[in-house]
Amino acid sequence: MNSQNDLMLADLKKAAREQRKLDSGTKNKALLKIAEKLTLAANEIIAANSKDLEALAADTAAAFRDRLTLNPERINGMIESLRQVAALPDPVGEMIDQQTLKNGLLLKKIRAPLGVIFMIFESRPNVILEAFSLAFKSGNVILLRGGSESKQSAAAIYKLMRDALTEAGFKFMPFHGIEDYDRGLVEQLLKRKDMIDIVVPRGGDKLIDFVQRTALMPIIKNDRGMCHTFVDEDADLVMAAKIVTNAKTQRPGVCNALETVLVHEKIAAQFLPMLYKETDSKKLQWHVDSASLFILKDHERVTSAKPEDWDTEYLDLIMNCRVVSGLDEALAHIEKHGSKHSEAIITKSETKARLFQQEIDAAAVYWNVSTRFTDGFEFGLGGELGISTQKLHVRGPVGLRELTNARWLIDGSGQTRG
Amino acid sequence: MNSQNDLMLADLKKAAREQRKLDSGTKNKALLKIAEKLTLAANEIIAANSKDLEALAADTAAAFRDRLTLNPERINGMIESLRQVAALPDPVGEMIDQQTLKNGLLLKKIRAPLGVIFMIFESRPNVILEAFSLAFKSGNVILLRGGSESKQSAAAIYKLMRDALTEAGFKFMPFHGIEDYDRGLVEQLLKRKDMIDIVVPRGGDKLIDFVQRTALMPIIKNDRGMCHTFVDEDADLVMAAKIVTNAKTQRPGVCNALETVLVHEKIAAQFLPMLYKETDSKKLQWHVDSASLFILKDHERVTSAKPEDWDTEYLDLIMNCRVVSGLDEALAHIEKHGSKHSEAIITKSETKARLFQQEIDAAAVYWNVSTRFTDGFEFGLGGELGISTQKLHVRGPVGLRELTNARWLIDGSGQTRG
Repeated sequence: MNSQNDLMLADLKKAAREQRKLDSGTKNKALLKIAEKLTLAANEIIAANSKDLEALAADTAAAFRDRLTLNPERINGMIESLRQVAALPDPVGEMIDQQTLKNGLLLKKIRAPLGVIFMIFESRPNVILEAFSLAFKSGNVILLRGGSESKQSAAAIYKLMRDALTEAGFKFMPFHGIEDYDRGLVEQLLKRKDMIDIVVPRGGDKLIDFVQRTALMPIIKNDRGMCHTFVDEDADLVMAAKIVTNAKTQRPGVCNALETVLVHEKIAAQFLPMLYKETDSKKLQWHVDSASLFILKDHERVTSAKPEDWDTEYLDLIMNCRVVSGLDEALAHIEKHGSKHSEAIITKSETKARLFQQEIDAAAVYWNVSTRFTDGFEFGLGGELGISTQKLHVRGPVGLRELTNARWLIDGSGQTRG
Repeated sequence: MNSQNDLMLADLKKAAREQRKLDSGTKNKALLKIAEKLTLAANEIIAANSKDLEALAADTAAAFRDRLTLNPERINGMIESLRQVAALPDPVGEMIDQQTLKNGLLLKKIRAPLGVIFMIFESRPNVILEAFSLAFKSGNVILLRGGSESKQSAAAIYKLMRDALTEAGFKFMPFHGIEDYDRGLVEQLLKRKDMIDIVVPRGGDKLIDFVQRTALMPIIKNDRGMCHTFVDEDADLVMAAKIVTNAKTQRPGVCNALETVLVHEKIAAQFLPMLYKETDSKKLQWHVDSASLFILKDHERVTSAKPEDWDTEYLDLIMNCRVVSGLDEALAHIEKHGSKHSEAIITKSETKARLFQQEIDAAAVYWNVSTRFTDGFEFGLGGELGISTQKLHVRGPVGLRELTNARWLIDGSGQTRG
């Protein structure tokens, strides 16, 4: 690591000491200032983004191109999101617990920021302000490293943020956007547990695996959603078809979208054609087991699932379908193939629903609901830095509170331990 | 990894699925059964421990030999601790939050176990039951790997646990004690994020560093306590001398013991001789800066501190002492040398105390109290698996709740996302 990067880390660490002391008013004003400047500079940001889009190879997948694109609507979304975060309650200093012990000690458990957060993300440039605003409001500073495909967009947004924060009177910079896209630098940064408190990788399996193998500091990982929905024999089948269709097709490119539907054998012959019809307009591709194939054999776009399909997060209009003998087989399938993200059961039986919710060890377990609801906004957290699939610190949406932790303040009058 | 260890991990993972469903009564009965058997088998455990002690090299440090030793008093402590954990409230299933969203979704946030915990610890054999009982009560299963010096003691305790759990009617084993002390096995286990949810290393810098470099699963680290106490110019000096003496000498071998006292220059000439007198009977060794040396120059056991002393966790009757120009210099010293464990200020000024508590980013920050209070029992958590110095998930004592995390259960009536 060159001395410039050492300096950058030292600046961030120093900024973290200032940031965690800021009052809510100062933080909110700064967020609104960035929103204001973004309103004025929308065209410049879109122009920078156009350069990124022009630089893409002609055969770049449409979905990738779409994720990279900024347009007036998305800029407005970013502005709205900044305002929403400004309006959210500040978690820093929140008193979680307070008690006087028998020995007279006053014990307070209060929320404090995590410190310096290193976020590694892929090509969506709107992630920058989403992540920054949540980290900033929760008293943290953030080091951002996006995908190189969005470098012009990122540079324009970083500049706008710096300008706005300077105008808002900031003497320190509570973020740093890395514009050196050398991968070796990321590797070096992941070793700097002396300067970085937490790393948040947001991306595919390869990125997560690289970070897990390399990072010396704690990780909040946001990775794959291999989400299932089990349609029980006691399900309302009309409701089930609507829920599964929503979970799979409403926005297939996100981690809370469904990948595999598991259908009880007793209702499969009735339900699968219903579900096929419900999803037909979406031109959904079906990868199915032999029992489903037997039922759907005359239908278009239905092929036999390959073994690896049951572990594939398509992020596309492709769905796995398997007929199971009942709840136990559904549970075993999810235990084997799920990614601890979001799982659902559709049934009229509360007993089976509670058993499913108890047995499935995922961040969010649904009864008669689409898995698409696993989301910081939907859960009332006001936003999210990502959706955690690990079991330490936070499961599911990573909101403001999840970017803090509790520490202890103890007041006494000379107590010593005997 | 040989197939026997693969089988062991598969058994543990299966056990974790059973363990998290156990009701509190079943768990408490099992803990009391182990306590009962331990009462009857105390002599056998002590006999096994004697073999470990006999196998030690003649020049083994007395402190190490002491930590390894089990005697009737320590066995009674283990029995008492099992009973206390049985009496504690069960965190599993605790409803943290419940609300009905506008769209009619009932959103519940409830406590769930972490799963399979891998604990690596050093030679204190009483850690086995402490760690097991907390993991077990909080719905987890635990894989234990102690230091090889305690292997006979550990084998006897593991056998007693297995026997007691079998007598209590357990069809699965909610723990596994590793009796193969090959270090290569630990390394292999640290790669098994597919089978182990969390690793908890408890030991010195070398162990923590090895685990951080090797483990692919999240870590709760319990390492060094480089704890300071700042004696302000406005301190009650009699109180200050008592607190510093307690923090340093009452039990110097533990992580919440003080290593460095920082003394305001305005009261140093008066305070240091007072503190010297208060600690004199303990034959404390002082490593001091030049200003302190000038004040204490005629005193025995006072030597100049070497630069590395300010970062040395002595775990012994040795104390660093430095005179500082005031609060700012004290804060800067702690920022540079502290380990985010426990820090204290002694002052009559509430303003300075609050500033200190706000500025110092440690798990526990004390005002007019000995740092020795950072402890799961003292904080009312009923015990601790260790004391975390990291910023993710838990800071300070790791109790029952800290061995769980929140997940989301969502009940609906057909909601889909628009």
